[in-house]
Amino acid sequence: MTGYRYKAILAYDGTDFAGFQVQKNARTVQGELEKTLSKLSKGESIRVHGSGRTDAGVHAKGQVIHFDFPFYIEPDGMQKALNASTTKEITFTLVELTDDAFHSRYMAKGKMYKYTVDNNRFRDPFLRHFSCHHRYPMAIKPIEEALPYLTGTHDFTSFASTHGETAHNVRTIYHVDVTHDEELNKWTFTFVGNGFLYNMIRILMGTLLEVADGRRPASDIPLILKAKDREAAGKTSAPEGLCMEKVYYDVTDIPGYTNNGGA
Amino acid sequence: MTGYRYKAILAYDGTDFAGFQVQKNARTVQGELEKTLSKLSKGESIRVHGSGRTDAGVHAKGQVIHFDFPFYIEPDGMQKALNASTTKEITFTLVELTDDAFHSRYMAKGKMYKYTVDNNRFRDPFLRHFSCHHRYPMAIKPIEEALPYLTGTHDFTSFASTHGETAHNVRTIYHVDVTHDEELNKWTFTFVGNGFLYNMIRILMGTLLEVADGRRPASDIPLILKAKDREAAGKTSAPEGLCMEKVYYDVTDIPGYTNNGGA
Repeated sequence: MTGYRYKAILAYDGTDFAGFQVQKNARTVQGELEKTLSKLSKGESIRVHGSGRTDAGVHAKGQVIHFDFPFYIEPDGMQKALNASTTKEITFTLVELTDDAFHSRYMAKGKMYKYTVDNNRFRDPFLRHFSCHHRYPMAIKPIEEALPYLTGTHDFTSFASTHGETAHNVRTIYHVDVTHDEELNKWTFTFVGNGFLYNMIRILMGTLLEVADGRRPASDIPLILKAKDREAAGKTSAPEGLCMEKVYYDVTDIPGYTNNGGA
Repeated sequence: MTGYRYKAILAYDGTDFAGFQVQKNARTVQGELEKTLSKLSKGESIRVHGSGRTDAGVHAKGQVIHFDFPFYIEPDGMQKALNASTTKEITFTLVELTDDAFHSRYMAKGKMYKYTVDNNRFRDPFLRHFSCHHRYPMAIKPIEEALPYLTGTHDFTSFASTHGETAHNVRTIYHVDVTHDEELNKWTFTFVGNGFLYNMIRILMGTLLEVADGRRPASDIPLILKAKDREAAGKTSAPEGLCMEKVYYDVTDIPGYTNNGGA
């Protein structure tokens, strides 16, 4: 490597981005970050490595990146400069120097995602970019019956987009839970796992919404897992409900790790 | 009047509106509503009356309007049609038939506004349209010392924009409080009064932020009130922190009414 390796944690509003990863002719988070870093480094082109991609419309509160910067800037000054130079849709909540061995993607041991559902009959305008709107009343009981089927190590082929690239579809979910904000009639689902297949949480959510509003019994979940067939699961739910909350680099930080498939 | 009078409660995201009131060559909430009603009434022009204006960037969760519609549509169907036809930035949370004597503005007995402050060192991207960012650490104690000076009946000339139209600047604040969401480091101020002068809450907030971060003692508040001079108060804080929460048509619903200047 050349220069100094920095690790950063980012929050971003994904509404107006075509996802995380650099693309030609599209505005992406990675593209914005690399543009900002290039300005700060007087024109050098600097590659940003994220812990994982997020799709168009998907948000992050705890995306982790690393990059190698050609000269030394003390981390607090780097954080101020980055926040001052980049778009208001992105905030660097932490910036620190890290050793050359750190890699945001390869060293990630787990991730937490949250998925938010606006269950009001008419969409809440303040949640419209940060939730999936589901107008049919949802019940807590079938959801709580369905969620335990998901924890542990499973082949999640049924919950993976057929456009995904992975040959190996076994993943471990360490923890999953749901909370209901009665005042806003907003549901928040939390998923913690060692990794997630392409569109996996959105397909899980499309299926869980069918369970929640009574269109499908909770006991379908193990049958869908067994089927290993994308057709067996529900629809892919909207991207705007999804948020990358946290990336774990130490398994002892992962909720549910020891009970559900971890060491 | 002609036709049927409807009362409605609206939530709207004010970010991309030039305020509530109709203006030439600007996109406003009232303009959007009148366009939507015109579509539903097959081209008739229908005037919308709001309980009060909101400025550009200011939001509402409980704005109340009324309008006269030329033919009868049952209220639930009207609500569905309005929500389906209007922009996603606006939601009709209630629609009902009302008698011809009802007037959203003249009959309002009080209003509740909330003002949200993002007190993170770096702006939270998810709060950027719905809060004022204040990077200097705020303390609860001086705020709690300042707020009681505001309740009751006062001449609020010092806290009114000099561009306002009111000759009579006496208003009553029935209730005011503050809460701090520690997880998000977000402060929410609530103001309930019989009416508010132009920019009054934003100037109160600009002043309270100086108290909160130690630039000004809480005991300045009564002196500023006494001065009856806009120059004595703080800056006008950002519009995006402000939200019209509720309009009261019955004084018995107003928090703090009997203790602070009400009957």
